[in-house]
Amino acid sequence: MTTEKIRLVPLGGLGEVGKNMMVVEYGDDIIIIDVGVMFPDEEMFGVDLVIPDTSYLADKKHRIRGILITHGHEDHVGGLPYILPMLDFPPIYATRLTQGLINVKLKEHHMLDKVTVNVVAPGDQVTLGACMSEFFRVNHSIPDAVGIVLHTPIGTVVHTGDYKFDYTPVDGKPADFGALARIGNDGVLVMMGDSTRIESAGYTPSERVINDSFDKIFANAPGRIMIATFASLISRVQQVIDAAVRYERFVALVGRSMVNNGQMAIELGYLNVPKGTLIRAEDINKFNPEQIVIVCTGSQGEPTSALTRIANQDHRQIRIQAGDTVILSATPVPGNEKMVNRTINNLFRQGAEVYYQAISNVHVSGHGAQEELKLMLSLLRPRFLVPVHGEYRQLVLHAKLAYSLGIPEDHITVVEDGDIVEVSAESIKVVDHARSGNVFVDGLGVGDVGQIVLRDRKVLSQDGILMAVITVDKETGMPIAGPDIVSRGFIYMRDADELLASARDRILESLTSLNGHSSDWSFVKDKIKNTLSEFLYEKTRRRPMILPIVMEV
Amino acid sequence: MTTEKIRLVPLGGLGEVGKNMMVVEYGDDIIIIDVGVMFPDEEMFGVDLVIPDTSYLADKKHRIRGILITHGHEDHVGGLPYILPMLDFPPIYATRLTQGLINVKLKEHHMLDKVTVNVVAPGDQVTLGACMSEFFRVNHSIPDAVGIVLHTPIGTVVHTGDYKFDYTPVDGKPADFGALARIGNDGVLVMMGDSTRIESAGYTPSERVINDSFDKIFANAPGRIMIATFASLISRVQQVIDAAVRYERFVALVGRSMVNNGQMAIELGYLNVPKGTLIRAEDINKFNPEQIVIVCTGSQGEPTSALTRIANQDHRQIRIQAGDTVILSATPVPGNEKMVNRTINNLFRQGAEVYYQAISNVHVSGHGAQEELKLMLSLLRPRFLVPVHGEYRQLVLHAKLAYSLGIPEDHITVVEDGDIVEVSAESIKVVDHARSGNVFVDGLGVGDVGQIVLRDRKVLSQDGILMAVITVDKETGMPIAGPDIVSRGFIYMRDADELLASARDRILESLTSLNGHSSDWSFVKDKIKNTLSEFLYEKTRRRPMILPIVMEV
Repeated sequence: MTTEKIRLVPLGGLGEVGKNMMVVEYGDDIIIIDVGVMFPDEEMFGVDLVIPDTSYLADKKHRIRGILITHGHEDHVGGLPYILPMLDFPPIYATRLTQGLINVKLKEHHMLDKVTVNVVAPGDQVTLGACMSEFFRVNHSIPDAVGIVLHTPIGTVVHTGDYKFDYTPVDGKPADFGALARIGNDGVLVMMGDSTRIESAGYTPSERVINDSFDKIFANAPGRIMIATFASLISRVQQVIDAAVRYERFVALVGRSMVNNGQMAIELGYLNVPKGTLIRAEDINKFNPEQIVIVCTGSQGEPTSALTRIANQDHRQIRIQAGDTVILSATPVPGNEKMVNRTINNLFRQGAEVYYQAISNVHVSGHGAQEELKLMLSLLRPRFLVPVHGEYRQLVLHAKLAYSLGIPEDHITVVEDGDIVEVSAESIKVVDHARSGNVFVDGLGVGDVGQIVLRDRKVLSQDGILMAVITVDKETGMPIAGPDIVSRGFIYMRDADELLASARDRILESLTSLNGHSSDWSFVKDKIKNTLSEFLYEKTRRRPMILPIVMEV
Repeated sequence: MTTEKIRLVPLGGLGEVGKNMMVVEYGDDIIIIDVGVMFPDEEMFGVDLVIPDTSYLADKKHRIRGILITHGHEDHVGGLPYILPMLDFPPIYATRLTQGLINVKLKEHHMLDKVTVNVVAPGDQVTLGACMSEFFRVNHSIPDAVGIVLHTPIGTVVHTGDYKFDYTPVDGKPADFGALARIGNDGVLVMMGDSTRIESAGYTPSERVINDSFDKIFANAPGRIMIATFASLISRVQQVIDAAVRYERFVALVGRSMVNNGQMAIELGYLNVPKGTLIRAEDINKFNPEQIVIVCTGSQGEPTSALTRIANQDHRQIRIQAGDTVILSATPVPGNEKMVNRTINNLFRQGAEVYYQAISNVHVSGHGAQEELKLMLSLLRPRFLVPVHGEYRQLVLHAKLAYSLGIPEDHITVVEDGDIVEVSAESIKVVDHARSGNVFVDGLGVGDVGQIVLRDRKVLSQDGILMAVITVDKETGMPIAGPDIVSRGFIYMRDADELLASARDRILESLTSLNGHSSDWSFVKDKIKNTLSEFLYEKTRRRPMILPIVMEV
């Protein structure tokens, strides 16, 4: 590749929310920013996780100088255990807390010894081939989030990561305005900017506002207080602990990932817990209800999480009791609304007082709203802009916003996963398209569930399946056993004797009409399939998958 | 039943959103308020519609004096075609537009001649057994919405229906404050009140605010304007037509239900269209783009609707072209967010300018917010309150709101579908529980898809199915053909030769271990099933449904 250009190849997170992964190429060097996962939507039946398709990198592994991570959320680091082996384990660079979160993950996948995770701090510089990378502090709903600068010989590339500007963040470390202004003053060739919250006008409020809500709730809670939030939202956990200390309560962390992350954050110094404040979940009942705060997972209504189990009266240790107050300190991720509502309903059913975002200020977003996006663009003043992190409409709206600030239309490209963007000192344009898309993780399989399997699962989920099994004489082609009909998910078989008897008759008729002359069983199967399909649709207006099986003896 | 009490038996809409149906019993008389449907959620695989379980009424049909309908939305009238036959077609009472919408529906189901739909107007009184019913005008996102009063010998029952207070509604007919105050002054024993929007503080804005948004968009649209909304939202269609007239554009209605409802509303006088304004969809291209407004269905991203087809470049007549402006004048119904977002993304991809609720004031809710719920409670001043229309948390919040206005706690009951509430002059309490729940409509079947079929569909959707078919000698029990393995939705079979060969070996092993001694085939099948299940889980961490089929010859 020429050294006059930079290539940006988004492999995830553009035209979708999740599995963020950006490839930056300069000359012979490849630098990757973030390797995230996406959680499956309701069309991806049975899939556990979705990771980026990285086949574009398959013949370029030797050119990868490093993977830079902006922060420790799943949609930025969750793909690492699956994709690192495919890329021969390139070195990772991440801030301290992010490294801690990555290591928890690598340990689970028995990969700790295979990969180096280098710790960097905001302001640090790392040489990667001909490029020099630099990290600047931003605010987000997790501490230690950074944006990334890549100084290349032809100009500076900036990736904001997920960001907002919080003048009074919980950890006391606001975004580094000085660094941003300096980078902007030195000149930015191309900026990749977070578009997640472009649809919201104004500013995202400071995390600080949550303290007031917590104060009001803590002051009036007659019994225990349970707070569910993301296990990675360390700053929120800190807010809960601070409130507990103010109101002289003890804190128990509940839920595997909450306990693991909490421990790690305490060890690394990201969570300040006064001695004697933390108690074990087993010891909750040794205290009076008004002395207790429980911090747990389950803010998304995830079926196996602590709060969901509590709401379903299915938790090993904790049952809702009179006087309990529950706070869901998180927004439902799009698609999770129903599960979250179900949890809230069940908590109310058991008599808890429940506070959640729709009725109380118990959460703020981790992403900047329109005015913050304008601020970032004004600090960095990039020559070119590539909106990242968002569905297509969000990328377009971010582009329009930048245009309204004076960036010329042809200096902004709205691109999606796989579009190869070439940036020179003078221009930005899409030059090619790389293979990209979703790779599904299902159980132990990575990539073995594809469109055909998914399509079958969808058909099965709609109208079920009906199998017609028949054993025929190899010589004569005449049926000697069956047809047996078995169905699942189509109709309640015990109430459908008549229908199934007619179906059997149809099969025999279609066999008889062949006069035993056909030994072309695929032809026979097609005939059975078509006959049954038509018959069943006429009788039920349903289209189960039909599977004729013919055995010769 | 005693004539000292009234019974309220909610069969739908309490503890859920949708399929509203309330049974009111006094003495020998039964009066039903609304018979709605609910749209299936993602757990109800393959189900088309959900209607209330009305088995409680099966032995009480002769006591039903009438079905009173509050307004023409699907969640209030959609169950009629399915439930009317089960109840021997009792007479229906509805306002004029509502009757029109019901008749469209009854005609589709060939039921027009089997049922009487009596037209009532706000203020009308209808005698039903020992009770007298009365209707009062409310505002909602459809014209001709009413609340219902039942004057019983022991006191007055009020059902608000869906409502908001709009001082400047599009049809010029605000809620009837005078009637509400009179009813309140005369004394209300029990009120059933809409809880849908209890989570929103303040007031719902007037429909009028949408005119300003339309004006701004119409004034700047360089080409065609397409507006998607609910086909039943006649007042919104009127606003579009008014805006089109102001900006000298022609209007085409597109989409089957939009055309049907529009026609009906014009005939009944609910839609005022100046002569020459309406054009046919086929004629759109005979005009200049800046002369055109298209009103279409698809505001919920429904796969077969006009707007979705347009967004997917799949519409018979209409393709997005440069300069098109699209307005989604509706809120996504919970659960539809992803489909709606997909539509918006696709419209942007094709170059349209798109306005939707998240970024523009192009829709207001049809339900009152907290201050309006307080106003209704203050006008009616009921002795007892039963919050209706809402998930459990919403009913609880409505109860808390009423309590904050001074209604004693024991005068409010939060109940769910099936709870039988008995109201006397002195008290309100739950006395029993009626069978209630979801009846699924799937194709031609009403109620034949139950929990077993649904559970199977769910299992099939997650990990697919694997069938193992074997033919054995009836005498010896030894396999003479197979085992053949067929799977769907489990794994891509062409890439799984090795796995499937091992699976076949396992089956043969487990048969051999039986030494051909067992002719208890259910035992053999269980053994095959368990062996395979364990083997496949170990190899793939997936749990397909396993179906062993043994044929004897």
